[in-house]
Amino acid sequence: MKLASLKVGRDGRLVVVSRDLTRAVEAVGVAPTLQAALDDWTHAAPRRADLAHQLEINSVPSFRFHEHDCASPLPRAYQWIDSSAYPSHLEIGRKARNIPTPASFFDEPPARQGGSDAFIGPRDPMRFADEKYGIDFEAEIAIITGDVPVGIGQVAARDCIKLILLANDVSLRNLQPAEREKGLGAFQSKPPCAFSPVVVTPDELGAAWDGAKLSLPVLSTVNGRAFGRPDAGRDMAFDLPRLVAHAARTRPLGAGTIIGAGVVSNRGEDGGFGRPVGEGGLGFSCISEQRSAEMLRYGEPRTPFLKFGDVVRIEMKDAKGHSIFGAIEHRVERLGGE
Amino acid sequence: MKLASLKVGRDGRLVVVSRDLTRAVEAVGVAPTLQAALDDWTHAAPRRADLAHQLEINSVPSFRFHEHDCASPLPRAYQWIDSSAYPSHLEIGRKARNIPTPASFFDEPPARQGGSDAFIGPRDPMRFADEKYGIDFEAEIAIITGDVPVGIGQVAARDCIKLILLANDVSLRNLQPAEREKGLGAFQSKPPCAFSPVVVTPDELGAAWDGAKLSLPVLSTVNGRAFGRPDAGRDMAFDLPRLVAHAARTRPLGAGTIIGAGVVSNRGEDGGFGRPVGEGGLGFSCISEQRSAEMLRYGEPRTPFLKFGDVVRIEMKDAKGHSIFGAIEHRVERLGGE
Repeated sequence: MKLASLKVGRDGRLVVVSRDLTRAVEAVGVAPTLQAALDDWTHAAPRRADLAHQLEINSVPSFRFHEHDCASPLPRAYQWIDSSAYPSHLEIGRKARNIPTPASFFDEPPARQGGSDAFIGPRDPMRFADEKYGIDFEAEIAIITGDVPVGIGQVAARDCIKLILLANDVSLRNLQPAEREKGLGAFQSKPPCAFSPVVVTPDELGAAWDGAKLSLPVLSTVNGRAFGRPDAGRDMAFDLPRLVAHAARTRPLGAGTIIGAGVVSNRGEDGGFGRPVGEGGLGFSCISEQRSAEMLRYGEPRTPFLKFGDVVRIEMKDAKGHSIFGAIEHRVERLGGE
Repeated sequence: MKLASLKVGRDGRLVVVSRDLTRAVEAVGVAPTLQAALDDWTHAAPRRADLAHQLEINSVPSFRFHEHDCASPLPRAYQWIDSSAYPSHLEIGRKARNIPTPASFFDEPPARQGGSDAFIGPRDPMRFADEKYGIDFEAEIAIITGDVPVGIGQVAARDCIKLILLANDVSLRNLQPAEREKGLGAFQSKPPCAFSPVVVTPDELGAAWDGAKLSLPVLSTVNGRAFGRPDAGRDMAFDLPRLVAHAARTRPLGAGTIIGAGVVSNRGEDGGFGRPVGEGGLGFSCISEQRSAEMLRYGEPRTPFLKFGDVVRIEMKDAKGHSIFGAIEHRVERLGGE
């Protein structure tokens, strides 16, 4: 099943979307919002499934689905946790800055509490007061959980994964050094992030989903040019149930918790770091990582961060080339300049 | 006006509470939940004010108000930001660990994104799998905002402060060192926190509220014995509107954002660090700070963290000795031992 939230009010209006992303039907009788659906997930499952089936066989009146009409699937959420399951992303950044990578990054998943009060829509502009912030995207896969009890194990955590989606964890790189010094985690350097227009249940992913990993490339472009296509199922040190269990070690997680797996990053064929698309590699899922690769190779970063007017796009396609989640696509704009 | 959320469903049932905390009336016709009230704050103001007035003059049927029946005012919120407005709290901890305090802690407010998906109720037990986590409380004052536009200035930020409350930002001290090493901010070491049973509008605070600071002692006890009574209006490097403006520098804040001012900490008469209540001082608002003071004085911490069975209580009283927000009171229990 595929779900989306149309831009209506603060919490969106839940719709069921056809597999091919062309048609939708309001989820009236199931739940008014995605959060309401997650609050009552199991109980309403038969009605949701029935509606999705009717939509596929065209036995219910539907309307044309436009990704542009979508809010973030949860326009605001009670929790957004960004993990970092691909160690090469963290390693390359530290190597470029010439600081050691803590061994603990390989022992257990790094996790960061993110802001979740107001996500930007999947096609909304990213607006900032200053280009000098060092505007960057981060292409990720993410999950939405049901209620997760404290102390859950990795096996049981599989069943807590209700929905899968893509994320753009927007980052302001030039605000990070000052926040690193304070040691309290990123705050101003992590403005509202964004998610794909459509969220899907795991069964929609077929063989690409093994219950713990999603093995398909995450496709990023900047101004229409390929930037990265690393596989989300490769080089993952911690699978998705592990991320859930880690997050729930000392506390329960409320239904509707979104957990990101971190910047998707593949190692090179030689086990070293990846290479840019322009050099025949799989590229990267954020500009910062490409800049780190350039730093290590050329002694200086060569790719600029995003500028006003730039457009970044993040998508994932199935084996037949069809978009699974719709596309996240943002134009970078000057705040107040609209 | 004083408001509270009774334990009903995931989001509580909003009630208006009498000034003396003895009676309440359901806010039917105003908003079903506190979040709904915040989403529509200005528009529903006259109806809220009218209901509160009727309750005070006993012209509406009311019921006995019990703090024990309360959920957290927002049982789950879209955002919880913990700042640190009292530099002596951060300084003493770093001095005890013999590491320098970054100068930036005095230039702009430290801010940390906290978990907000499932707060514990003001009288609920705090349950943990292991006493060895180093269980600690943190007594704070906090505010709830309306919608805050990105880039707001400090003067305009005053009007965004809709409600004031007390917080217990529960901390697991022995999980902090490993998380510090990772540099991503506290996560497992910050389990669900708690807030006072009652939230109040600024006008309820009289002369103690100057629009930017709340000048009254925050009273903490452990097992019924006084632990701290520092004044929340003293030794604050950043006032509450400043905390709001800082949090909104690169992003808007959604209605219902809770911002804590950090562990309330007063300096000693000599401008140095404070002293424990047992030594004639104003004491501290968390055990960790008292342990740091002991470390500096005796070369070792002497006060243990909380143990199973311990009870911590946080409250604030007005000039006449009446509780303003009701009391946060938690018994520490073993998870699964209930």
